[in-house]
Amino acid sequence: MNIAIVLSGSGVYDGAEVHETTMTMLAIHQEGATYQCFAPDIDHMHVINHFSGKEMNENRNVLVEAARIARGDIQPLDKLEMKDYDAIIFPGGFGAAKNLCSFAKDGPECTVDAEVERVIKEAHGQKKPIGALCIAPVIVTRVLKDVEVTIGSDPETIKAINSMGGKHSETTHGEVVVDEKNKLFSSPCYMLDANIGQIYDGASAVVKKIIASI
Amino acid sequence: MNIAIVLSGSGVYDGAEVHETTMTMLAIHQEGATYQCFAPDIDHMHVINHFSGKEMNENRNVLVEAARIARGDIQPLDKLEMKDYDAIIFPGGFGAAKNLCSFAKDGPECTVDAEVERVIKEAHGQKKPIGALCIAPVIVTRVLKDVEVTIGSDPETIKAINSMGGKHSETTHGEVVVDEKNKLFSSPCYMLDANIGQIYDGASAVVKKIIASI
Repeated sequence: MNIAIVLSGSGVYDGAEVHETTMTMLAIHQEGATYQCFAPDIDHMHVINHFSGKEMNENRNVLVEAARIARGDIQPLDKLEMKDYDAIIFPGGFGAAKNLCSFAKDGPECTVDAEVERVIKEAHGQKKPIGALCIAPVIVTRVLKDVEVTIGSDPETIKAINSMGGKHSETTHGEVVVDEKNKLFSSPCYMLDANIGQIYDGASAVVKKIIASI
Repeated sequence: MNIAIVLSGSGVYDGAEVHETTMTMLAIHQEGATYQCFAPDIDHMHVINHFSGKEMNENRNVLVEAARIARGDIQPLDKLEMKDYDAIIFPGGFGAAKNLCSFAKDGPECTVDAEVERVIKEAHGQKKPIGALCIAPVIVTRVLKDVEVTIGSDPETIKAINSMGGKHSETTHGEVVVDEKNKLFSSPCYMLDANIGQIYDGASAVVKKIIASI
């Protein structure tokens, strides 16, 4: 069982959320499966100083920064062919809404990175499970439209999901919304105030349900 | 029980190893303790592109980059007073040997960042447990000299530890060398080829022994 993880950088405010990503990796390993990381070879929307919270006058590349979490073992997203993998998971972090799509800027009218859109449609077409943590369900909703997801309980994001054609269910830590028709599994993680144990619970619950569904 | 974690950036090749750091956080949480991250407010020795492995023509700040793993919840190392904490842990990653000290460049003749040296001496003087993963035991050995540690089995690093006054024991995954006299706990983690489950095992074993010793 081999699962593709799609990263959006490295760091909650402009990239992939680090805890959600590493807890997903740990959960996959603990279930006896393996993973391969991917990220698009594109510029960050912007770079945030994670100590001050302010924007930095820098350019960074999503693939190059995501490689920090993956210890260099990562491939450009255009190399991902879903026929070679059993499932795909998108951790959250603002990078999912800033780099993988433009949701943070454009809301429900957002555009999705072409390669991200391709791999979601490919996974869906091949009936492979798709996991989405934290804010990442907005990307899948924008691409597939008629889906059931959770991002926790944030009213603005729920409104946006509804207006993109999705159906939202409120959840708390460790809970997973299972869209059986689309084989889509989502959990709120850091869309709620959380500690790292709750992130582990959420990621682990998604991974277990994905693996059970294969 | 509140444990200080000292980071050296974010990313194995020039900063704190991301998996070792997050697995340490998870293990602390699972033992019912809390943690606070710290990092020195200094420049990186250099910046490595983690996708290509090559040096980049950039300057980055250790505290600012470490904040990515800590989700912004991090303090400058000069704010750490060991009287406020029950233990201190140094995850590994090349940052420990490049930013917290100059071991990667200077070997056993390395200099140690002044604040890093201060907090190690403070913890030692107050008989608070010190944890060191992966390559981080070289820093503690350089500061305290007469200590027992492990970095796994790398002959060059073992030689350097001996020449700094330390005593090395070879170990494999999940094993901890306990120096009872100095309350120092070390485990090899990514100094050996490892998967993320083995990193969790090593970090968790160190954290459990530290907490049992308090």
